[in-house]
Amino acid sequence: MDTLTIVKIGGNVIDKPAALQSFLQDFAALESPKILVHGGGTLATEMLEKTGVPVRMHDGRRITDAETLKICTMVYAGWINKTIVAQLQQAGCNAVGLSGADANTVPATKRPPAPVDFGFVGDVAAGSINVPVLSLLLDNGLCPVFCAITHDAQGGLLNTNADTMASVIAAALSKTYRTKLLFCFEKDGVLAHPDDDRSIIPEMDTAYFQQLKEQKIISKGMLPKLNNAFAALHAGVAEVYIKHAAHLLSANAGTRIRVENGEWRMESHMARQPFSTFNF
Amino acid sequence: MDTLTIVKIGGNVIDKPAALQSFLQDFAALESPKILVHGGGTLATEMLEKTGVPVRMHDGRRITDAETLKICTMVYAGWINKTIVAQLQQAGCNAVGLSGADANTVPATKRPPAPVDFGFVGDVAAGSINVPVLSLLLDNGLCPVFCAITHDAQGGLLNTNADTMASVIAAALSKTYRTKLLFCFEKDGVLAHPDDDRSIIPEMDTAYFQQLKEQKIISKGMLPKLNNAFAALHAGVAEVYIKHAAHLLSANAGTRIRVENGEWRMESHMARQPFSTFNF
Repeated sequence: MDTLTIVKIGGNVIDKPAALQSFLQDFAALESPKILVHGGGTLATEMLEKTGVPVRMHDGRRITDAETLKICTMVYAGWINKTIVAQLQQAGCNAVGLSGADANTVPATKRPPAPVDFGFVGDVAAGSINVPVLSLLLDNGLCPVFCAITHDAQGGLLNTNADTMASVIAAALSKTYRTKLLFCFEKDGVLAHPDDDRSIIPEMDTAYFQQLKEQKIISKGMLPKLNNAFAALHAGVAEVYIKHAAHLLSANAGTRIRVENGEWRMESHMARQPFSTFNF
Repeated sequence: MDTLTIVKIGGNVIDKPAALQSFLQDFAALESPKILVHGGGTLATEMLEKTGVPVRMHDGRRITDAETLKICTMVYAGWINKTIVAQLQQAGCNAVGLSGADANTVPATKRPPAPVDFGFVGDVAAGSINVPVLSLLLDNGLCPVFCAITHDAQGGLLNTNADTMASVIAAALSKTYRTKLLFCFEKDGVLAHPDDDRSIIPEMDTAYFQQLKEQKIISKGMLPKLNNAFAALHAGVAEVYIKHAAHLLSANAGTRIRVENGEWRMESHMARQPFSTFNF
């Protein structure tokens, strides 16, 4: 069984041209087969402002009305996706940019309007991913680069969470490949103390995640990322890491997520923390 | 040898949602293998205006500076391409949206800055088209849908003429398939009298084209389209038509372009014209 690496790259890295270029060089150097899933960054917000489309949020999540969907599709599937593809091509990686509508790779379902109407937002399920077409591309040396725009198979486009998209694609492909999922962003990993960038948790299992959640140590943005990470593991993904984009090629950097932690001991983990009080 | 149909759809059709949807239904009904190449429409101009990017033209052709390229890529590769793909998917056509950067399908060369600096504009050559990857997609039941954004293989995106892109792709694939190229737009064909929509020329060969050019009967917008049509024929494309988007499925509608006209006679053509004076 071939090992497939699926990398999610976050918007904060995309916003910094030098960081993005360096990350893409590293990504190009990763062994194939591989898939990249990218987030959005601030360009969508900037374009919404410039074109006078009001930005509406609920609980930190964007509400996608028709005009917002149009701008998001322009930015994610247009400028960001094609910029990344062109840079990967330059770096020798045979990238092909896709939305979930392309080749029907990621069909989605419009989120029900209750309790909150998020508008044109799509939820994706691992069972609906088009594995044969992704295998066709991967087996022929192509590297799919996904933006987080999907479709409802009824002619409509949908805005989708990029972390979820990466997790679900990894889950779907874990029957065909030994799948490794890397969430790359602007931090060194999951932090035990959100204010302390050095407080990286090297490994996290389900029990520890529960503890941190109960203690409200996991920050708002990290919670869905970790839920996606655990969901991928439960669906058969072999390895999941949350790490800094600059450490893509360092195999053990960041936080390794495990359903159940076999080798690792809470004691040794605590001993490795660069801070003395570890409050759990 | 399989017959491959390559259809170019113009911006004026894209701008009208009902006309576009009807065209896409017809396109979905066309026999495979097939490729769609789409133009831009007025949305790019609208977005440039909204975001305060000045529209600069030279001799009716857009000058593409960095900001213009960004907006054009957003609109062409983002919103328009994905809207078309989603609608084709709904209609049962397994569309996959591509720019020339994707899978390195259409590498281009930045146009030299002299005599006129058109900015980030790419010129494409049939010899550089990535035929194996297009064949891979086509032979697996996928339908490539191209926007006219290409790349320079050095990480840069380029704005490209969609008629030229369609012509060059058709030329490149004419070694592998019997290739049919249809330029679809909002008129019934090439007009002998630009003011008279009924004055459709049913067939045009090189000699007739020369005559009409000398008499300045060919309008500015039609000239590059016809040049692209003849270039495709000279490069081995079997059939080329210029026709109304609404007549996609009517095999003989529009103007058939031929290098040399065997069967057709000038006399019979003149007799078929719906006007009495035919000044050449």
